[in-house]
Amino acid sequence: MDDCVFCLILAGELPASFVHEGPDVVAFMDIQPATPGHLLVIPRDHHADLSDVRPDIAAEMMIVGQRLGAAMRETTLRVDGINLFYADGEPAGQEVFHAHLHVIPRWDGDGFLIQPTYGELPGRSELDRNAGLIREADG
Amino acid sequence: MDDCVFCLILAGELPASFVHEGPDVVAFMDIQPATPGHLLVIPRDHHADLSDVRPDIAAEMMIVGQRLGAAMRETTLRVDGINLFYADGEPAGQEVFHAHLHVIPRWDGDGFLIQPTYGELPGRSELDRNAGLIREADG
Repeated sequence: MDDCVFCLILAGELPASFVHEGPDVVAFMDIQPATPGHLLVIPRDHHADLSDVRPDIAAEMMIVGQRLGAAMRETTLRVDGINLFYADGEPAGQEVFHAHLHVIPRWDGDGFLIQPTYGELPGRSELDRNAGLIREADG
Repeated sequence: MDDCVFCLILAGELPASFVHEGPDVVAFMDIQPATPGHLLVIPRDHHADLSDVRPDIAAEMMIVGQRLGAAMRETTLRVDGINLFYADGEPAGQEVFHAHLHVIPRWDGDGFLIQPTYGELPGRSELDRNAGLIREADG
């Protein structure tokens, strides 16, 4: 897509620091890293929504993310843990509307805060009800 | 493993609200949901670290997460977006040491905060250097 920064990167029209260039999936450094080493794994095909990414391509994104997460741990970058993070939709924090999986190196005190505000814990009947709703929709 | 709560769930010795039960991967509701509908996708085999999960099983976790994320959107649960989140290692927020992928329904104002504290943005030379370190470790 003409106005998609990731498509422009894939077309060589914007710079990127590539870590992986496969036939269907590539990875490059995030220019606004949550921590140093933070990279993005994206499909070559443009899709805004995760549900539009072919399942085998989503799978390949995961395999590349797993592999590069392991590679990060062997570098001199300070890596004691890894987050994989995918934001699908604006309320989920998606900012670039081309599918992408974040791979984020983590260490104690890195300042990256993931803070759910837990309310009252649900009982089993509510968990069962929600499970049933999703199972039913999954067909 | 005897003292792993997820292994006990898989063995039927602890309750869970299942959404998916495949040969290699299952999904059930998180009992401490970040938002209602929050579920976990886990491999049947016990591995604490993501790097020890077979890549085809990690891929299957992603495919199931993608599918159940799409299913969530079709329920009466309030879902305007989805986060997939994987914590590998304690500094990354891992609390149960059996591999698991979170699938978290999101909507505006749901109170789930993911807040990186960005420092000074790195220049291209630093991005290139980090990309090189990871590429080299990736072999």
